[in-house]
Amino acid sequence: MNKIMLPFIRSDLAQFTAYKPHPSSDTAEPVPTQRDRLDTNESPYDLPPELKEKLAWTYQQVIETNRYPDGGHETLKEAIAEYINESATLSPSVLTAANISVGNGSDELIRSLLIATCLAGEGSILVANPTFSMYGILAKTLGIPVVAVSRNAANFEIDLAAAQSAIEQTQNPPIRVVFVVHPNSPTANPLTASELAWLRNLNEQILVVIDEAYFEFSQITLVGELAQRPNWVILRTFSKAFRLAAMRVGYSIAHPEAIAILEKIRLPYNLSSFSIAAALIALQNRQLLLNSIPQTLSERAKLIEALSHHPTLQITESATNFIFLRLKPNGFYLQDTALKNLHQELKSSGTLVREIGGGLRITIGTSDENDRTINRIQAALANLKI
Amino acid sequence: MNKIMLPFIRSDLAQFTAYKPHPSSDTAEPVPTQRDRLDTNESPYDLPPELKEKLAWTYQQVIETNRYPDGGHETLKEAIAEYINESATLSPSVLTAANISVGNGSDELIRSLLIATCLAGEGSILVANPTFSMYGILAKTLGIPVVAVSRNAANFEIDLAAAQSAIEQTQNPPIRVVFVVHPNSPTANPLTASELAWLRNLNEQILVVIDEAYFEFSQITLVGELAQRPNWVILRTFSKAFRLAAMRVGYSIAHPEAIAILEKIRLPYNLSSFSIAAALIALQNRQLLLNSIPQTLSERAKLIEALSHHPTLQITESATNFIFLRLKPNGFYLQDTALKNLHQELKSSGTLVREIGGGLRITIGTSDENDRTINRIQAALANLKI
Repeated sequence: MNKIMLPFIRSDLAQFTAYKPHPSSDTAEPVPTQRDRLDTNESPYDLPPELKEKLAWTYQQVIETNRYPDGGHETLKEAIAEYINESATLSPSVLTAANISVGNGSDELIRSLLIATCLAGEGSILVANPTFSMYGILAKTLGIPVVAVSRNAANFEIDLAAAQSAIEQTQNPPIRVVFVVHPNSPTANPLTASELAWLRNLNEQILVVIDEAYFEFSQITLVGELAQRPNWVILRTFSKAFRLAAMRVGYSIAHPEAIAILEKIRLPYNLSSFSIAAALIALQNRQLLLNSIPQTLSERAKLIEALSHHPTLQITESATNFIFLRLKPNGFYLQDTALKNLHQELKSSGTLVREIGGGLRITIGTSDENDRTINRIQAALANLKI
Repeated sequence: MNKIMLPFIRSDLAQFTAYKPHPSSDTAEPVPTQRDRLDTNESPYDLPPELKEKLAWTYQQVIETNRYPDGGHETLKEAIAEYINESATLSPSVLTAANISVGNGSDELIRSLLIATCLAGEGSILVANPTFSMYGILAKTLGIPVVAVSRNAANFEIDLAAAQSAIEQTQNPPIRVVFVVHPNSPTANPLTASELAWLRNLNEQILVVIDEAYFEFSQITLVGELAQRPNWVILRTFSKAFRLAAMRVGYSIAHPEAIAILEKIRLPYNLSSFSIAAALIALQNRQLLLNSIPQTLSERAKLIEALSHHPTLQITESATNFIFLRLKPNGFYLQDTALKNLHQELKSSGTLVREIGGGLRITIGTSDENDRTINRIQAALANLKI
């Protein structure tokens, strides 16, 4: 078949570039087989064998492969609500299943929120770059305009003056949703008091989406404010601290009226029976799974301490399971060439990291992986004379 | 929290009713525990124990729960292409992975097709009712107008004059996509020669989506025409004959240019690692799984034969794994009251079926289930004096 025109496709989609999933076994690009995968902020730990066995048993003995999944998610939503109340030390009954909608990863929830608010020329969205790229990508597939403001280069705080001005001046369509990650990816910083004050003061016609994907590492959350803020939605995921990236389960926490809309929009059987079972087992065993968090935090301190001594590296504090590393200006190289070379050299030596927002985002891995990260970065900097 | 207004939600969504998933353990509505679930056209057979064991082993030994799934699906798409070529007796190399996009069920693919074509007031869709309800439901969540025409009451052929007139006269926005199921659900009939001729003659600015969800039962397919028809997309699923409804895997077959657009729109990690593994294992063992089809077809003949003798029942031919049953006019009852009563009586006696399109859609189950279906329908008709 030759290249043809498809006149039934929206013209604005032709130029659109999709999100590039991280390298997999299917990718033509060669990567060392023994590689440290520190490019997607996954947990370095699989579920313990006894939980994998329990899940395998559940599949064999309980799940009927031939039957559609539970399309209501009631049991899972109740378990999630219980976990949120517990982890935010809210009264046990504050949040219930009616405050939860579960998605095929947070991605599906982001798309649903965009569909609910901005379609048909009704709204634009606001993001502060660098940030999680899917907000903008999913908006563009839906033909929704994306207004981007920048961040302070030193501490990554959102340029609030620019954000406020964008809100006031953007028309046709106006800004209807603000997306923030708390703490932000790739820069690893939580929202500041000024940012929070600004979000709290936004007009209730604007939906505020607060992505707490890294909550289990930061232990800071805004769920306690949800009861007062019907225009806030908090996103969470099982893909990071709960080690279920393979299973694709995210959830949103919000006022029941907003949740009811998300439930209308979501695909009726959006989660497989196995993914539902995996999320339930992870929640039932949360103490065991979240026990690894302190080690991740001390490994993070080790990485930051070891790399901060290098005169060329600039590493800011992190409230997440990754660090964001930039290069200080250097006479010899152009800065982004140096960054690309460092990225490439790390890849060649077997450590995958993500180059984004003018820096490298490096996931905290196992202790051995982190040792190799330190050694390989130091070796690469020496090699490249950066 | 009290009922509040959410001013950031699109106003047209407020009145919208979602697809109702079939009753699950979470539903408050009481159903007998020993019930025959013949309401969602699933296979009555789980995977054989040896395949469930293999899949459980794959999860425990191969899948890393903590890692994101393969976002490229290359291996799965190649296996699907091989199966299609084989089952349609096409030359082995005609369809390749470049002709395939895989979705979280066909639902995700339908949504992607709508996003690709009709958003932002660019298009309406055409359906012929009764048909699979998700086309219209997903269109409405996206604010896309749905134009519906009817079918011939005797043989369920689409009212082609009405369809043609709708295409010619619908403006602001024009019809951009026509959805058909081949064979149709709930009426079980394949496209006729006239319907096919009409579809072939449609302007190439109109996308034709042919949902072959029941292909393995009908053994009729239009994939052989795809090379000549860049404006056709065929949908298939692993949820019916392949017995994977719990795993949520559907796929589309089309020209590589159309596939490239679908790949841009889909969520980058739309399938869990377990679902990908399940689809691959199902394809590798397709002979074993599809061996049950002849029995389903002979059970279907048994059901039709047994029920056709009843003077009140009207059952048309079926090319699928379900039958569509209507009631002949009867002086005693209003017809739709009689239908509702019959539906309710079957449910009370333990057989779940779907009331839709002025009839009951009844899935072919196991031999025992089908025997009970026959007995319970006959008893209900006698009880209700229909």
